[in-house]
Amino acid sequence: MAEKAFTLNELYEAWPVLSTAERVEGFELLQRQEAEEFFLQLNAQDKAQVLQGLRAGERRLWIRLLPPDEAADVIQESAAPEHESLLSLLDDQTRSEVKGLLDYAEDEAGGLMNPRYARLRPDMSVNEAVSYLRRDARSRAKAVYYAYVVDPQERLLGVTSFRDLLTTPGERLIQEVMRTDVVTAPENLDQEALSHLFARHNLMMIPIVDEERHIKGIVTVDDIIDVVQEEATEDIQKIGGTEALDGPYLQIPLLRMIRKRGGWLSALFLGETLTATAMGYFEAEIARAVVLALFVPLIISSGGNSGSQASTLVVRAMALGEVRLQDWWRVIRRELVTGLALGSILAAIGFGRILLWQTLFQLYGEHWLLVGLTVALSLVGVVLWGTITGSLLPLLLRLFKFDPASASAPFVATLVDVTGLVIYFSVAAMILRGTLL
Amino acid sequence: MAEKAFTLNELYEAWPVLSTAERVEGFELLQRQEAEEFFLQLNAQDKAQVLQGLRAGERRLWIRLLPPDEAADVIQESAAPEHESLLSLLDDQTRSEVKGLLDYAEDEAGGLMNPRYARLRPDMSVNEAVSYLRRDARSRAKAVYYAYVVDPQERLLGVTSFRDLLTTPGERLIQEVMRTDVVTAPENLDQEALSHLFARHNLMMIPIVDEERHIKGIVTVDDIIDVVQEEATEDIQKIGGTEALDGPYLQIPLLRMIRKRGGWLSALFLGETLTATAMGYFEAEIARAVVLALFVPLIISSGGNSGSQASTLVVRAMALGEVRLQDWWRVIRRELVTGLALGSILAAIGFGRILLWQTLFQLYGEHWLLVGLTVALSLVGVVLWGTITGSLLPLLLRLFKFDPASASAPFVATLVDVTGLVIYFSVAAMILRGTLL
Repeated sequence: MAEKAFTLNELYEAWPVLSTAERVEGFELLQRQEAEEFFLQLNAQDKAQVLQGLRAGERRLWIRLLPPDEAADVIQESAAPEHESLLSLLDDQTRSEVKGLLDYAEDEAGGLMNPRYARLRPDMSVNEAVSYLRRDARSRAKAVYYAYVVDPQERLLGVTSFRDLLTTPGERLIQEVMRTDVVTAPENLDQEALSHLFARHNLMMIPIVDEERHIKGIVTVDDIIDVVQEEATEDIQKIGGTEALDGPYLQIPLLRMIRKRGGWLSALFLGETLTATAMGYFEAEIARAVVLALFVPLIISSGGNSGSQASTLVVRAMALGEVRLQDWWRVIRRELVTGLALGSILAAIGFGRILLWQTLFQLYGEHWLLVGLTVALSLVGVVLWGTITGSLLPLLLRLFKFDPASASAPFVATLVDVTGLVIYFSVAAMILRGTLL
Repeated sequence: MAEKAFTLNELYEAWPVLSTAERVEGFELLQRQEAEEFFLQLNAQDKAQVLQGLRAGERRLWIRLLPPDEAADVIQESAAPEHESLLSLLDDQTRSEVKGLLDYAEDEAGGLMNPRYARLRPDMSVNEAVSYLRRDARSRAKAVYYAYVVDPQERLLGVTSFRDLLTTPGERLIQEVMRTDVVTAPENLDQEALSHLFARHNLMMIPIVDEERHIKGIVTVDDIIDVVQEEATEDIQKIGGTEALDGPYLQIPLLRMIRKRGGWLSALFLGETLTATAMGYFEAEIARAVVLALFVPLIISSGGNSGSQASTLVVRAMALGEVRLQDWWRVIRRELVTGLALGSILAAIGFGRILLWQTLFQLYGEHWLLVGLTVALSLVGVVLWGTITGSLLPLLLRLFKFDPASASAPFVATLVDVTGLVIYFSVAAMILRGTLL
């Protein structure tokens, strides 16, 4: 590999499967301009990894390429003992800005914002504003599209776009041109709520303000795409029954992967041992009518599957803000009807299957009709119970301030398995007493 | 409700739970300016619903508020018989633009683009460009931040931002100022791939071009947020074992909801009936050693849970481009190690549990040690099998051109249940022959 320099695209393609050493080596072989382009489009974690691998003299150059918000992200992704030495590479102004940003939690609006933005005064003319912006290095620090109008105490008064400045007669005053109905967000707003704000108003930028409307920085929509992807990834991983991985699948060290999956898996397993206890109560029934045991997996998996469906739909609807806590009654009503319908469909299929197999193979003994009835009735009960449990669990988790996405498919399935067994054997006891039992 | 007008925020809050008639009623009670703001931030489906509910005379006014790409989305969301009458409400130019957009599939780059953008010639001076943009109504049609430089055949030559125009001496030529390394996308690019392009390059806008680099329109990043949310929602719903709902949970008609869930649920149920068949083969063994039946739910659910984890992680990693088809061997290697580790953990817990219960309650008879060994060994096998199946299924689906997200948690669990039973009873036959069996 040392023989030949990667092209930009080759390195980009190969990146996910390269080791840290290979990444740094490949990066150092890029031509200067390509290396800059490549470095800037890496995510913060990969930037930190590359910086870590470079010689000390090189590092300063690369970290100084970054605007303060990205530098802060990179430092956040680096090991804690590195923070001071990375901060020391920055120039004084950037260092103090970055330190300010590091005080915010990673998932708050403040943690996403760029402290540099273009600012204007309301009593400037458009011509003055334009020549001020030409001179102001700050407005060139990052691609910006709006200039914010502030009073002498740096409180937000309004906003004007570069496009408006360009297409407005030069002698008009900024205060006549600016829009005053600016959508803003507080510093500690959760990043998911911030992404809803962007989506709702179709905005390119949102200024972050404190209680007195002092601008602390701006968040641009391109950073929000990453937030939306990240939040969806976390939710999906939780729905699948693991902790959020916090990194690309192929990059996570195996031991951490095993820990993130093993925790939930062991908890679910302990919950599931209750099925052995439940089955133990019905051991005598199973001994008398082994045919009952044959349908246990079928019955409980139907409850688990319908519960997974319901919980996943409600979890996602809550993440999108379509379902809120106060909608619980509407959710129950929908799931009651849906659960009954789905349970009846499965009951019909299940009964038909037993009828068919009995006709073909005479598998289920003289009381097959009663067995079929037991299975069908249990299916209605178990599926109904599964949908109700699955749909209410995310709401309950939210009520008790947990993440609704923890209502994972496996968690719901485990909850429903134990109760499914009880429903099945109770129905069996009712229907089969005096014949098989 | 007709008594009192909603405020903007009240209507926004109540919106998800209102019926169509209530929505239209609430909308009509808004003040004019608020109604405009409210209408513009609705998604295409809700816009179509509101338009549908308005009187014919009102409709023209509201649909003409929209830029061509949004008008096209609204028409796409309306019932097919409405399309012609909605098109007839537009002015001639917009109508022909919208018709052009309707030819693209909804999930292609072409279907997302706005055909209106600001264009310049390379031999203009910056001053000429600015005064041209001031006069050009097209550049004011939507919030735009870039002007694209085209040759007389409308082929893309470069791009310049309004900010650059504002901060560059007026006598310089556009061709000296413009950037020529423009990231573009073809018209038929899938919208998910387009969102990766935005994320990779941190762009605000991407021009959509044909093979000869003629610009067909532009896509802005705020439209991409909706795409990312939508794709994540579809994946999450599929992972939960339903078809994608294509609409908010509380809005979907119940019958459609039941159809979207019932299809997969019935298919899974039919697959799961194989467990009854598999159990049937081991009926004699169960009759002889009922204690074996007690652990069936525990064993098969462990396979299902570990399979759900693996499939969900791989599905998401594939959606993010972190895992590709050619990485299959790396995935298998990881999952082999992970599966063995997780299986051993569960085996230890399972054996410990049997040991403890036997000591406390003497539940499992004289051969409890062999039973415990059977359960522990089966757990290693079933969990290993579950993780391998769960991680490879999404890759296989991609190989055969299906959506990897169809490797839902319930689907994997169903697959693993049948084989899990076979593994369990085979291990039991091996270990317990001559004692319990």
